[in-house]
Amino acid sequence: MEQWNLETSEPFAVMGTVVHSHHSKSINILQNHVIIVHDGKIQHIGMAPSLQELKEVHNISERQIIQLSPSQFIMPGLIDTHIHAPQYPNAGLGYDKTLLEWLETYTFPLEKQYGDLVHAQNVYKHVVRHSLNSGTTTACYFATIHLESSLLLVDLMTELGQRGFVGKVNMNTCQNKGYNEKTEQSVTDTEIFIKNVLQRKNQLVQPIITPRFALSCDSILMKKLGELAKKYNVHIQTHISENLGEIEAVKEIFPDSKHYADVYDKAELLTKKTVLAHGVWLKDEEIKLLVSRGSSVSHCPCSNTNLQSGLCNVRRLLEAGVKVGLGTDVSGGHTPSILDVMHSALDTSIHVFFQHKNIIPLTYHEVFYLATLGGAEALALENEVGNLMPGKQFDALIVDMSSHYLLNSEPETLVQKFVYCGDDRNIISVFVGGKIVKKTKI
Amino acid sequence: MEQWNLETSEPFAVMGTVVHSHHSKSINILQNHVIIVHDGKIQHIGMAPSLQELKEVHNISERQIIQLSPSQFIMPGLIDTHIHAPQYPNAGLGYDKTLLEWLETYTFPLEKQYGDLVHAQNVYKHVVRHSLNSGTTTACYFATIHLESSLLLVDLMTELGQRGFVGKVNMNTCQNKGYNEKTEQSVTDTEIFIKNVLQRKNQLVQPIITPRFALSCDSILMKKLGELAKKYNVHIQTHISENLGEIEAVKEIFPDSKHYADVYDKAELLTKKTVLAHGVWLKDEEIKLLVSRGSSVSHCPCSNTNLQSGLCNVRRLLEAGVKVGLGTDVSGGHTPSILDVMHSALDTSIHVFFQHKNIIPLTYHEVFYLATLGGAEALALENEVGNLMPGKQFDALIVDMSSHYLLNSEPETLVQKFVYCGDDRNIISVFVGGKIVKKTKI
Ligand SMILES: [Zn+2]
Ligand SMILES: [Zn+2]
Repeated sequence: MEQWNLETSEPFAVMGTVVHSHHSKSINILQNHVIIVHDGKIQHIGMAPSLQELKEVHNISERQIIQLSPSQFIMPGLIDTHIHAPQYPNAGLGYDKTLLEWLETYTFPLEKQYGDLVHAQNVYKHVVRHSLNSGTTTACYFATIHLESSLLLVDLMTELGQRGFVGKVNMNTCQNKGYNEKTEQSVTDTEIFIKNVLQRKNQLVQPIITPRFALSCDSILMKKLGELAKKYNVHIQTHISENLGEIEAVKEIFPDSKHYADVYDKAELLTKKTVLAHGVWLKDEEIKLLVSRGSSVSHCPCSNTNLQSGLCNVRRLLEAGVKVGLGTDVSGGHTPSILDVMHSALDTSIHVFFQHKNIIPLTYHEVFYLATLGGAEALALENEVGNLMPGKQFDALIVDMSSHYLLNSEPETLVQKFVYCGDDRNIISVFVGGKIVKKTKI
Repeated sequence: MEQWNLETSEPFAVMGTVVHSHHSKSINILQNHVIIVHDGKIQHIGMAPSLQELKEVHNISERQIIQLSPSQFIMPGLIDTHIHAPQYPNAGLGYDKTLLEWLETYTFPLEKQYGDLVHAQNVYKHVVRHSLNSGTTTACYFATIHLESSLLLVDLMTELGQRGFVGKVNMNTCQNKGYNEKTEQSVTDTEIFIKNVLQRKNQLVQPIITPRFALSCDSILMKKLGELAKKYNVHIQTHISENLGEIEAVKEIFPDSKHYADVYDKAELLTKKTVLAHGVWLKDEEIKLLVSRGSSVSHCPCSNTNLQSGLCNVRRLLEAGVKVGLGTDVSGGHTPSILDVMHSALDTSIHVFFQHKNIIPLTYHEVFYLATLGGAEALALENEVGNLMPGKQFDALIVDMSSHYLLNSEPETLVQKFVYCGDDRNIISVFVGGKIVKKTKI
């Protein structure tokens, strides 16, 4: 690739190999193609025309063309459907405990500190940069219970150019060493948060209602949050069925609910715009409920292994018709890289197969889908992002595999090597809404 | 760290935090320590003295001192007890098949090409560099059946400064699409190979006898190789009990053997200097045999997952007294990085725990041991390398974690972050036998 230098405020074109998904089963590899970007959106995708045609028909001047090399391809940006921004400093630490103890020992003491805006600014800047640098063009963040620093995260994402969601966390039960809120305050702050984010008329970042999980919120709070979600027509995120101890505790505290999912359903928290992290231990009945509500699951295999939560059978969820995306779940997950999570999803799926021989492990094509279009569907953003179809936002990665030993540069070889052996160094450019948010000299 | 610039031919010292293992259970963290290196070997390790004492007692001038920063530590080099150099171009490719089909479809056709010395030179240079760059100071390589290019690998390791073993592969059965040898030729070439490597009087690289596995060699060949091993007192490597289909086939072909391990034992291939890759499905009786022979297992969790071979229960091997090291098994494994394998060993061990609740998963301390001293013991090199004790070779890594977000720089934090989140960029210097083989400007 010639080192390009284009004006993203004007139309531009990318020519070369395009890799994206239209459905869960396989990736589409389009060689010798062009993508034309106009106002941050994909205007056209098709066979690469001549330079003359590009100029005369599409009004693209030569310096507005990125010509990919044979060891490069362009693909949709990665989508992280579940990540805790404040937990970033703990990534890679504290995996000697399982969920409930881990929360009390490592997580709540750290999250408490985000009343301090200087600390928040410092960490949030690092996590958003790291996430973008790893190719995540859309991220769905949990912040903390703190209103101010949650708004700070919104502003940092906007400034650094990452698409996504931020949720001010809700927690009104008292087992968290003082890291919690009064019910009224929790609801009021959440409404202020939503209004503030919406008032920014931000193209990139939306508010998301974020009851931490059923053990951190009582029914009254959850019902009020369900009402807010309806009033403002906004997204919802929470955790579900991650760990067996958690599930037992939910059963005890909510004896009137049929199951874990029913706790959320009773509060009208299961909508088409709801994403639920984990779902490792969901019962068939719960899966049916999620499908009927149109709610999705964020699969976080790194976290599920680190915290010894269990092996999530993604094949079962997909076959039942649940929308599934991937999540890093930092810092239950040790990495903000969705590429690492893709790898972990492949491994986990093979280990599920070891237990249930009738399950077919996920292929790397399917995992590519989960990381892109699957994530978009899980966040009800499939009309905006997830693949490189006309009308969608130009959220895309240029991948360069020339640093790897290649016997050939068949696109299938490049994509496989990227999924199994790649890292952020292979993601040489990242675009969000047509703007360049990462560009490496090669 | 000041950018140092020392003469490794003269004595030098490293001052700062030292991390290494003396046994499998825990790592030793020594803050404010010094290691003094003389003629490539560790002469002294102890509490850091004053500069004056360093000069007067140890004869180390100021420019011969590496002063580590608080976000750095020094640790033993990583040991890869099982890697196939010729398969490197296929790393990350072809995981749609399991072992026996994978060999026929992807591996043998590639290995056949190493009659071509230009091809061999090109690939072998890349794999040794990649391995060193990933912090592997000792590697135990399978080459191919080709004598000339196997010797080339020995010379490249010597040139690039990596310690380890190279085996010319033996295969005399005919199911390999013409990739095999006649028995006599196989034995003769192996003896020529051993003599050639020993004649080089190389401090770094030793020959290792390498029957591919029981399905590639008949009893006659294996017995002759056992004799060669005894005659020259050299190491032996092969594969064992990786995949259930393989085990069934071994049973059919060797009906007189009690089990897979017995096939090798009958040929006197199980010695104190034998390392066996995989051992996923070893029976108790086989484990006892390995312990009694002093043979070791190379645990290759990446490969065992990619090729859907199974979950190896390392805890069971360790508790039985088997020596265990880690192996990348490129290209069954997708990566020449032992750090990646450490991560995979942790994941695999947790997934074993999911199946057998009475098994305690490996800790990151134990995995650190497996990657260093465990590997040295598995290769019967524990008197030479594996930790940073006086008298041993100075095979070491300087690790720098300053690129990660750190709330503190406690050594435990640095080591955990390195094991869970690190990559080759954190390994800023690599020493083998006191020589610098990697040095990154930071
Ligand atoms: Zn989470
Ligand atoms: Zn192998």
